[in-house]
Amino acid sequence: MTDLIHRNSSGVFVIAATPFTEDGALDLASTDRMVDFYLETGVTGMTILGIMGEAPKLSGEESRSFVKRVLARIDGRVPVIVGVSGAGIDPMRALTAEVMAAGAAGVMLAPMQGMGPEDRIEGYFGQVCKALGPDVPVCLQDYPQTTGVRMSVESILKIARDNPQVVMLKHEDWPGLTKLSRVRAETGTGEQPRLSILTGNSALFLPQEMQRGADGAMTGFAYPEMMVQVVDLSLKGDHDRAEDIFDAYLPLVRYEQQLGLGLAIRKETLRRRGVIATAKVRAPGPVMTKADHDELSRLVARLEKRLGELG
Amino acid sequence: MTDLIHRNSSGVFVIAATPFTEDGALDLASTDRMVDFYLETGVTGMTILGIMGEAPKLSGEESRSFVKRVLARIDGRVPVIVGVSGAGIDPMRALTAEVMAAGAAGVMLAPMQGMGPEDRIEGYFGQVCKALGPDVPVCLQDYPQTTGVRMSVESILKIARDNPQVVMLKHEDWPGLTKLSRVRAETGTGEQPRLSILTGNSALFLPQEMQRGADGAMTGFAYPEMMVQVVDLSLKGDHDRAEDIFDAYLPLVRYEQQLGLGLAIRKETLRRRGVIATAKVRAPGPVMTKADHDELSRLVARLEKRLGELG
Amino acid sequence: MTDLIHRNSSGVFVIAATPFTEDGALDLASTDRMVDFYLETGVTGMTILGIMGEAPKLSGEESRSFVKRVLARIDGRVPVIVGVSGAGIDPMRALTAEVMAAGAAGVMLAPMQGMGPEDRIEGYFGQVCKALGPDVPVCLQDYPQTTGVRMSVESILKIARDNPQVVMLKHEDWPGLTKLSRVRAETGTGEQPRLSILTGNSALFLPQEMQRGADGAMTGFAYPEMMVQVVDLSLKGDHDRAEDIFDAYLPLVRYEQQLGLGLAIRKETLRRRGVIATAKVRAPGPVMTKADHDELSRLVARLEKRLGELG
Amino acid sequence: MTDLIHRNSSGVFVIAATPFTEDGALDLASTDRMVDFYLETGVTGMTILGIMGEAPKLSGEESRSFVKRVLARIDGRVPVIVGVSGAGIDPMRALTAEVMAAGAAGVMLAPMQGMGPEDRIEGYFGQVCKALGPDVPVCLQDYPQTTGVRMSVESILKIARDNPQVVMLKHEDWPGLTKLSRVRAETGTGEQPRLSILTGNSALFLPQEMQRGADGAMTGFAYPEMMVQVVDLSLKGDHDRAEDIFDAYLPLVRYEQQLGLGLAIRKETLRRRGVIATAKVRAPGPVMTKADHDELSRLVARLEKRLGELG
Repeated sequence: MTDLIHRNSSGVFVIAATPFTEDGALDLASTDRMVDFYLETGVTGMTILGIMGEAPKLSGEESRSFVKRVLARIDGRVPVIVGVSGAGIDPMRALTAEVMAAGAAGVMLAPMQGMGPEDRIEGYFGQVCKALGPDVPVCLQDYPQTTGVRMSVESILKIARDNPQVVMLKHEDWPGLTKLSRVRAETGTGEQPRLSILTGNSALFLPQEMQRGADGAMTGFAYPEMMVQVVDLSLKGDHDRAEDIFDAYLPLVRYEQQLGLGLAIRKETLRRRGVIATAKVRAPGPVMTKADHDELSRLVARLEKRLGELG
Repeated sequence: MTDLIHRNSSGVFVIAATPFTEDGALDLASTDRMVDFYLETGVTGMTILGIMGEAPKLSGEESRSFVKRVLARIDGRVPVIVGVSGAGIDPMRALTAEVMAAGAAGVMLAPMQGMGPEDRIEGYFGQVCKALGPDVPVCLQDYPQTTGVRMSVESILKIARDNPQVVMLKHEDWPGLTKLSRVRAETGTGEQPRLSILTGNSALFLPQEMQRGADGAMTGFAYPEMMVQVVDLSLKGDHDRAEDIFDAYLPLVRYEQQLGLGLAIRKETLRRRGVIATAKVRAPGPVMTKADHDELSRLVARLEKRLGELG
Repeated sequence: MTDLIHRNSSGVFVIAATPFTEDGALDLASTDRMVDFYLETGVTGMTILGIMGEAPKLSGEESRSFVKRVLARIDGRVPVIVGVSGAGIDPMRALTAEVMAAGAAGVMLAPMQGMGPEDRIEGYFGQVCKALGPDVPVCLQDYPQTTGVRMSVESILKIARDNPQVVMLKHEDWPGLTKLSRVRAETGTGEQPRLSILTGNSALFLPQEMQRGADGAMTGFAYPEMMVQVVDLSLKGDHDRAEDIFDAYLPLVRYEQQLGLGLAIRKETLRRRGVIATAKVRAPGPVMTKADHDELSRLVARLEKRLGELG
Repeated sequence: MTDLIHRNSSGVFVIAATPFTEDGALDLASTDRMVDFYLETGVTGMTILGIMGEAPKLSGEESRSFVKRVLARIDGRVPVIVGVSGAGIDPMRALTAEVMAAGAAGVMLAPMQGMGPEDRIEGYFGQVCKALGPDVPVCLQDYPQTTGVRMSVESILKIARDNPQVVMLKHEDWPGLTKLSRVRAETGTGEQPRLSILTGNSALFLPQEMQRGADGAMTGFAYPEMMVQVVDLSLKGDHDRAEDIFDAYLPLVRYEQQLGLGLAIRKETLRRRGVIATAKVRAPGPVMTKADHDELSRLVARLEKRLGELG
């Protein structure tokens, strides 16, 4: 039996890709290999069916099949969060019930595209949490760059107070360092319960975020071992070494962080590393040009050289 | 065997609601009654699973069940367009194949949320049309208020030239009267094939749109008989009478045209007219207040008085 | 000495156009005539240098010259609100000081384009109010369709509590009837001071807004006499007669309410009514086509006929 | 007499800050020092009154005073581009005439906030260029993250073809590497004249952009000497050394690239470097927290260490 996510969850919850074969079908063999790869890098959790997992492009049957395969392969070794955001509360409730029964550790929820102003956001999360039931732990995703919804710190705190099952924040507002500092300082005090804070945005500010009190990362950078090292070193207080390692990867982190195109770069990197069989992204989706491929090769070669120097 | 939609389709393609029971299940008995009601008002077609049909809130099974019920009840008397817009091309292709096999007359496609700039829009429709196959007639939906995507007249023309299966435009850019005039003037000439133009936006400008060359309406105003009369009279050239009738309904058209809330008002009006059993909108969705209900009552009472005076 | 605007200001504050000559210069002769025209229709106030007044297209000198001309012509007979929204607080403070010294009755402020989330909106208004000084009455403009900023009722109330000089709300969120009802119900009670609520959006819902407790209208519909009658009748409780008159104008209200293009239609209507010498809109700006002109003629002819029938 | 900008302009056109004293007045002494500093770093041009120069927060008098001071100090040693984007064409024409007469080398133009779809963008630039007159060289700014306007490559090419005075592109769409490659490949061929391409976005992809054919950078990173070195080395083909230097600065480049907050970080860095007297940003504007200050100190210390190692 897997542990549920909770207010002190920490480490790296890697956002898993969804592997496809060249003709676009789910690639379950690559899925197994990818799960093994992630576990070997030392991640403490996994998040599936997020935007980067191309969830909206899967049929209901495919989603269920993928979730089951991942959960079976992991077999309780680390907790798995499933993204369930959608347009209707009924489908979200049904999907949640199903994945929790299958062994998921919690679900991730983002506000609906274009929703607002804030009182409607807060009401919406209350409605959804009630529908999911109080026993389902929720990770609240704050990602205005794709949802178009900007949540204030006050809104995040209120949602967490009103819905005790909201135990985790996926922080990826941008610029968002001050917001992270505020959520850290204003939770876990008095009547405001603690939130586990895991950060996204392809890890572009990971050492800084750790120094400001994040509990770890939740993003899909194709070298999860970097994130594991940086988070571990940061939690131990060795910020210099954490930043030395991070900075070596930063040219590539920055490259993979390109909104939209980043998914193609990430899958191509995982393919080159032997993790998944193809870099296929379902249509409509980004496609790397010849120049992009060459650029990636160059950046990877420079990374390897730099890691050698770093020792 | 139903006729497919084509470049000269005209009249009123009513956007059908999706009726639910009070506890949120699909209400198929109300669905039958609604189909009968629409046919009695004289509509020449029907469009289902659009945004106003709450398509994104239905599960795959519910969508299929609803489509089949509607097609069975209509039994080929008028063509039915099915909204298939989604995030992934594969699910769109699968849904399209299924509904066309079941007797649909064509599908409606909108650009994806936030897509742009224009060359990507054009490429996207090319990709989707190729995936659906050349035999599936497509209605292109131009609705920037909800998609966030603004298409130029040039883009619409290019998409129609590049993809001969695009035979119809659902026009609901706003303000959009000049755009409508331009599309009418610049199609059906030389190398640019004609497009059937049906207008949306809850019919707020229907007489003006007909005078500018629209072929009819495609929207879900809860008094479809008004749209049928206005379109018929306009096509016969009796614009004065068309506007007299339209203006009597205008206070209510304007009231129902409120973005978002309009769906609740429309369903409540259909409920009051005895068409559907409940005004239930699936969560998250708009809810009418007591003040809204009273306002609607007042507007309906005034409409009835005015229709009496009009004779 | 003009009275300042206050928490009980009511009636019609017409949004004044800014008249230009055919070659684009400020037309001060037309300005005088326009002021006289507005006063003759019975407006109780005037608002200048709003978006519809093309404020961002005026140079600083032109703005000052226009404000002075309008204030001189009105000569204290009705209060004048000046729109001062801008990108920097220093220029806003300077403009405010100048127009208040010249006899303005208050200023209108909107949030900055794209600002958010809500705590920054509230902080921003605090900052601006402090800069303007506590003696300058402020009308808060809630117009998300052009600012892109959605304010919750809670934010509006907080801004009004924190800044006692905010005495008026220009309400033009859309759909916004429930918001209006809430602001009316939740102000003027206990610690939340009353706000004068004047409504915008070209008056598209004016009778409904009055029935929900608005104090009047602040918009620029080219037949201000309609707004004056509807507001007066509504304040007296004669809602039937108010709606009879409003409904006669509604086809034209709806036509003028087209975002962007509406300004050209409004100026052309004022020109046809002999109020301003030209319908010139400064570039870049909307231009009416031949079809638009014909449509306007038709709508005006129908209005006149209808008014004749109405008696 | 300064040279005008042209189709082969290259190097680094630094986006200049606008220095203020602590109480918010223009700081002309710091302006002189800043100009000297920029010239010493080896920039080949300067761009003033851009968004980062807080142009919209200056009064007309302040803008003119600042432009004159900068031009006087530079005294023709490098060309100066002046940002003139605004809401009205008349004020843009007036400002352009004035700065060109004072010795500017060209002007920079961005599309208006929210403008679109594409045919209106193209028409708009035609209208503006005509108003400015054919002798004024124009740098077209493509910056959708702040303007909200996404321009296709086709639009950029058409604007450049239709308006021969458009000789330069400030490229800062994001992700935008493929767009840059396309503009480079599709200009300077046949009927499509060459464009100088200078890149923005705080230089986050500068070596990659140079490798794809950019002519240089136009952004305000607070260490312009890095940009000068990277551009020079790249133009000579020494991409390895260019990237070595760039990567050393990348943690700081990324830090300064935070939208909005970046301006405060940039000014604070210039202040610490002794270039300007205060880091004052005019209200409303970003403010650095204590944590931000400490973070910046840490990043600068690490940069210095790294530069020492790099030799």
